[in-house]
Amino acid sequence: MRADVPLPKAYLLLNHGPVTLVSSRDGARTNVMAASWAMPLDFDPPKVAVVIDRNTLTRELVTASGEFALNVPPRSLAATVLDVGSVTGREVDKWARFGVGALAATRIAAPLVAGCIAWLECRVLDERATEQKYDLFLAEVVAASADDRVFSAGRWHFGDEQLRSLHYVAGGQFFTTGESHAVGAAAQAPPA
Amino acid sequence: MRADVPLPKAYLLLNHGPVTLVSSRDGARTNVMAASWAMPLDFDPPKVAVVIDRNTLTRELVTASGEFALNVPPRSLAATVLDVGSVTGREVDKWARFGVGALAATRIAAPLVAGCIAWLECRVLDERATEQKYDLFLAEVVAASADDRVFSAGRWHFGDEQLRSLHYVAGGQFFTTGESHAVGAAAQAPPA
Repeated sequence: MRADVPLPKAYLLLNHGPVTLVSSRDGARTNVMAASWAMPLDFDPPKVAVVIDRNTLTRELVTASGEFALNVPPRSLAATVLDVGSVTGREVDKWARFGVGALAATRIAAPLVAGCIAWLECRVLDERATEQKYDLFLAEVVAASADDRVFSAGRWHFGDEQLRSLHYVAGGQFFTTGESHAVGAAAQAPPA
Repeated sequence: MRADVPLPKAYLLLNHGPVTLVSSRDGARTNVMAASWAMPLDFDPPKVAVVIDRNTLTRELVTASGEFALNVPPRSLAATVLDVGSVTGREVDKWARFGVGALAATRIAAPLVAGCIAWLECRVLDERATEQKYDLFLAEVVAASADDRVFSAGRWHFGDEQLRSLHYVAGGQFFTTGESHAVGAAAQAPPA
């Protein structure tokens, strides 16, 4: 079940480096694409950084609306990650073509991707020079939620193989997030 | 054995989102810290983005020298990742205190961390406003190498559990990189 994640814990949804789906909307037009190049940028208020290529429809929708969502797909959606990464939203409605479900977000107009295990609703920060030069978008996370079967009380706890997050390499090769290991007695987070 | 990775393949060393160690040098002073917030930024020439907090010694050394290395530690170095992330290089020589070995880099003066499985030698791009405002450094990768037991011919192939890369969460919790899955027949990389 989708449950709210307190904003100061939102970075935990991306900290381990999973592949993401970027969903966006401008008016009646919506799209979804895959992005491995996404990471936390700050804790509180939470921020993220994500690369969105200048030739994508997503780029156009994000620039026009100033919003997007980062969705963390589980292994069961691995084929969908490849599918939405293999065609452009300018030519096909990826939601319909690939049977991708949409959920309403709470703070932004862009839809969330159904069947994902975590969602970060983001508003773009005004850094046009960085966008233009590097295709790099910086954004504030304004709402976060996660599937409480795998993330609750500020921790990931993967059990079901099909609900593990994914780490994309290239050429259709993914790794699932593997075994959990606790290191150190009262271990602390490394300074970023 | 450490083997060169062609620069257009360097992004593959970070694409799956592993935790990194940032090593740096300015004159006689060197340091190493942990960073989960690092990702590829471009393919060719390869670039990376990494968050380096303004209060760290690493920040001072990177700003002074304009260089750093991103080192990808394997599971066998998990305790070291926590160790170097738990104290500041202003107070202790982390290399000596934690028995971290150093290797000579090929294109930069900063040392590389011995026992890692991949290394990206980086030169900072001149984006001071972004550094100041977000603690975010953008850099070009000028040399890359990897342990050919786990990365060769442009692919990760993890076997030995102790040589798997790590994904950091918080509070001493890591995930190892899990099982590899190939999806799609002639699958292509999702556009960034």
